[in-house]
Amino acid sequence: MTALRWSDMDAYGHINNVQFLRLLEDARVVAFAAAGSDEGGSVVDTGVLVASQRIEYLKPLVFRPYPVAIDLWVTRMAVASFDLGYEVLDDAARDDGAGQGGGPVIYARAETTLVLYDLTQHRPRRMRPAERVRLESWQGEPITWRPQGRGP
Amino acid sequence: MTALRWSDMDAYGHINNVQFLRLLEDARVVAFAAAGSDEGGSVVDTGVLVASQRIEYLKPLVFRPYPVAIDLWVTRMAVASFDLGYEVLDDAARDDGAGQGGGPVIYARAETTLVLYDLTQHRPRRMRPAERVRLESWQGEPITWRPQGRGP
Amino acid sequence: MTALRWSDMDAYGHINNVQFLRLLEDARVVAFAAAGSDEGGSVVDTGVLVASQRIEYLKPLVFRPYPVAIDLWVTRMAVASFDLGYEVLDDAARDDGAGQGGGPVIYARAETTLVLYDLTQHRPRRMRPAERVRLESWQGEPITWRPQGRGP
Amino acid sequence: MTALRWSDMDAYGHINNVQFLRLLEDARVVAFAAAGSDEGGSVVDTGVLVASQRIEYLKPLVFRPYPVAIDLWVTRMAVASFDLGYEVLDDAARDDGAGQGGGPVIYARAETTLVLYDLTQHRPRRMRPAERVRLESWQGEPITWRPQGRGP
Repeated sequence: MTALRWSDMDAYGHINNVQFLRLLEDARVVAFAAAGSDEGGSVVDTGVLVASQRIEYLKPLVFRPYPVAIDLWVTRMAVASFDLGYEVLDDAARDDGAGQGGGPVIYARAETTLVLYDLTQHRPRRMRPAERVRLESWQGEPITWRPQGRGP
Repeated sequence: MTALRWSDMDAYGHINNVQFLRLLEDARVVAFAAAGSDEGGSVVDTGVLVASQRIEYLKPLVFRPYPVAIDLWVTRMAVASFDLGYEVLDDAARDDGAGQGGGPVIYARAETTLVLYDLTQHRPRRMRPAERVRLESWQGEPITWRPQGRGP
Repeated sequence: MTALRWSDMDAYGHINNVQFLRLLEDARVVAFAAAGSDEGGSVVDTGVLVASQRIEYLKPLVFRPYPVAIDLWVTRMAVASFDLGYEVLDDAARDDGAGQGGGPVIYARAETTLVLYDLTQHRPRRMRPAERVRLESWQGEPITWRPQGRGP
Repeated sequence: MTALRWSDMDAYGHINNVQFLRLLEDARVVAFAAAGSDEGGSVVDTGVLVASQRIEYLKPLVFRPYPVAIDLWVTRMAVASFDLGYEVLDDAARDDGAGQGGGPVIYARAETTLVLYDLTQHRPRRMRPAERVRLESWQGEPITWRPQGRGP
């Protein structure tokens, strides 16, 4: 669960489109730290660099003093990089009517390509076997994007 | 030209990946206002909503007290939406050695899908002929992304 | 309890001094909403404007995936405004060594003057009796600032 | 001159009170770098830490695609620290009617206490004679705050 801030809203009174990526960053940092906490580390042994990002906004989100859920899973693994998929959503079970008619309310879908990076050598590095094992346990479905060029 | 802020850097000492999208927003808002200034308006007659975004980071960017260039052009036009392409770059001609060996230094490429939105009726709307004329004058090449799934 | 974000850190690797005020805003918004939740409202009936702020930084704070405490109380009440005092701190009882030797670790002290504002009439307004009762229940000690001009 | 960003506005449609301090930081960083550019340095030889801040908001400021002026001067000098005063303003001479009737429009006044800091030794340090000379050339009037406790 990721807390919103009132200041995440822009002059339109909605959570700003750029701040959605801030929320993803926040969820990712917390998830990585939590995954490594047994071993006093992180899901990856050193830093990662963001190589690319893609996001689709599905519904406007307004600030409220309770958090949103951000689901996050691995959508691709390569020699020295991996992709994370995300959904920013409200669970159907919430009692506040945000989830009408059963399914969760999904505000945005996104994907980030992360490159493993050796912070002391200042260069990308290969994924280590232990990292691969941890990331494999997070693997899930690829993101289904809106049909390209469909748009309104 | 878009000014950086020292605070755009994160704890890694680079302009943060999310802040790149903030810079794009800033460049877009200023370009829209400038394009409409003859007519006291904007390049579009009412608001736009960001429907999706995609960005690739090519080189790390560090804060400096002079601006970056953000080139911005139309890559697609539809009935009620359009895409903007962007390049965040330093011009080769700068005297500070940022552009070595001729070509410009490109920090990031990005694309945003914008939906025309009627802020009083709270719904998407069709592009008007005058808007189409203005946006057509901004048309340019599609973005060339890195080969998909290539990554390191 | 107020969650930090990794992005609250600046290039020095500390929670940025400006972001401390962002944290205070966040704590205030959540506290106001919580105080009014019995009555479906807020601690004040309409908006407030920030008229002035003051903050002293006592210790550097580094991002961690668990929240900080932000204590917040009323330090002054007037006809149409009131002051909030704040302390950003870690409780002594935390098991992570942040609180050494008993007392809490205080990162910052601050005070904000808030003006009651009629958002429809666009002007300041008097405090209502029910608001006064609610705010009185939050009253506490004035902030003790460092001796003025002492500094290093 | 300091550029505003559209995102500096909050859901009230004004430049957010916390973002004013972001603008001050931006103006300070640029002024420090410019002051030291003859000598390839900065107005101070090493980093500074912000020890405290105070700000009064005088008028709401709305985003526009041209910058605000931020005047900045030294209001106090001590052995190992100094204070900067600021005014965020529009010059009277602007042609857009922002400055009506002669005087400048002042949006905010502020003051920051900065501690000279040795970034390698991780401790405050004394002001050097050359720094003192440079900062003395920036000296100006103390800030005149609104009468304390007057407020509405």
